[in-house]
Amino acid sequence: MKIGVLGTGMVGEAIGTKLIQLGHEVKVGSRTANNEKAAAWVKQSGAKASQGTFADAAAFGEVLFNCTSGGASLEALGQAGAENLKGKVLIDVANPLDFSRGMPPSLLVCNTDSLGEQIQRAFPAMKVVKSLNTMSCNLMVNPGLLKEDHLVFVSGNDAAAKATVTTILKEWFGWKSVIDLGDITTARGTEMVLPLWVSLMGTLQTPVFNFKLVK
Amino acid sequence: MKIGVLGTGMVGEAIGTKLIQLGHEVKVGSRTANNEKAAAWVKQSGAKASQGTFADAAAFGEVLFNCTSGGASLEALGQAGAENLKGKVLIDVANPLDFSRGMPPSLLVCNTDSLGEQIQRAFPAMKVVKSLNTMSCNLMVNPGLLKEDHLVFVSGNDAAAKATVTTILKEWFGWKSVIDLGDITTARGTEMVLPLWVSLMGTLQTPVFNFKLVK
Repeated sequence: MKIGVLGTGMVGEAIGTKLIQLGHEVKVGSRTANNEKAAAWVKQSGAKASQGTFADAAAFGEVLFNCTSGGASLEALGQAGAENLKGKVLIDVANPLDFSRGMPPSLLVCNTDSLGEQIQRAFPAMKVVKSLNTMSCNLMVNPGLLKEDHLVFVSGNDAAAKATVTTILKEWFGWKSVIDLGDITTARGTEMVLPLWVSLMGTLQTPVFNFKLVK
Repeated sequence: MKIGVLGTGMVGEAIGTKLIQLGHEVKVGSRTANNEKAAAWVKQSGAKASQGTFADAAAFGEVLFNCTSGGASLEALGQAGAENLKGKVLIDVANPLDFSRGMPPSLLVCNTDSLGEQIQRAFPAMKVVKSLNTMSCNLMVNPGLLKEDHLVFVSGNDAAAKATVTTILKEWFGWKSVIDLGDITTARGTEMVLPLWVSLMGTLQTPVFNFKLVK
């Protein structure tokens, strides 16, 4: 499949690399068409990897991943262009981190709204599915790194889009427990896990952990 | 031990009942000294159970549980009186739920502050330990209801107070995995689990679940 990955940070690189390993064609998008980090990644990733602007990546992908930093996501998607986003599934991995108060980060939006909702409102013809935003990027694409089964959530308004994302999570990335929380407003819940996650990372001294549901 | 339980709702009743079963003396506090729900609970709970005002319960308890509704906690503690709270460990179980926008509830405070911090700031001579606020009340005092080990967190500024609470959680209530997240600011993280918890309760159709840490 042709996938557009928006963002060239650690998350975009981890997801892009996994997709290439799985045999997909990946175009990584950034603010400029010749981003150096993206160029280095393309060089090492072989013939199925390419780079371009946010608009190039959005136009290329049948499915899109939003791996931009949360505070810049709306602007990046604006540059991608509503016409290139129309009708597509966007897997929104970003958290709206606010580093303006120093470390640890707080959230730019929460409680009565979420980044997932903001993106869905701004691009109503795109199908936003919030997912993978509750763990470190190496776990997103390699859940088997942990000893036991653990959780990933999906939130979104479009049932078919959530089914597509669930297939990607299970068949491509190897997730076993994918929980559908409901519509895109439930992205508030997963984005608001951030402060607990940050505290736990400090206590455990590793980002390589996640939660399992116990009933 | 003599314990003061502030609040006569489901949470206060679950905790009070467990403490009585364990052989402790429990005074339940409410706005008025003759609260009917508290009277009914005292009647069924035997000689070691009693009731009174918030001030009565605070004066009585060597350790206190805040089981009032989050939006009313500061007022209830104000009625309890700073002199009665001074030097004591308060286990703050409350979440600052905001029902003013309907269901599901949002939070009255979050992200850059928390109810736990508000209480600690308002009563600096009391030792606030946020805990038990991430699961339903039957699990708080009966963690063995679930098939596997699962998590409870403690947040607070006073190491000795957290040690006291950890002993109560482990020795009295039967918790195995008690994670110290850090100072009281980490209460933001556990209070902000609420929206995810509410969505999961809807998906799972039961409040009887919790999270296990997987590494």
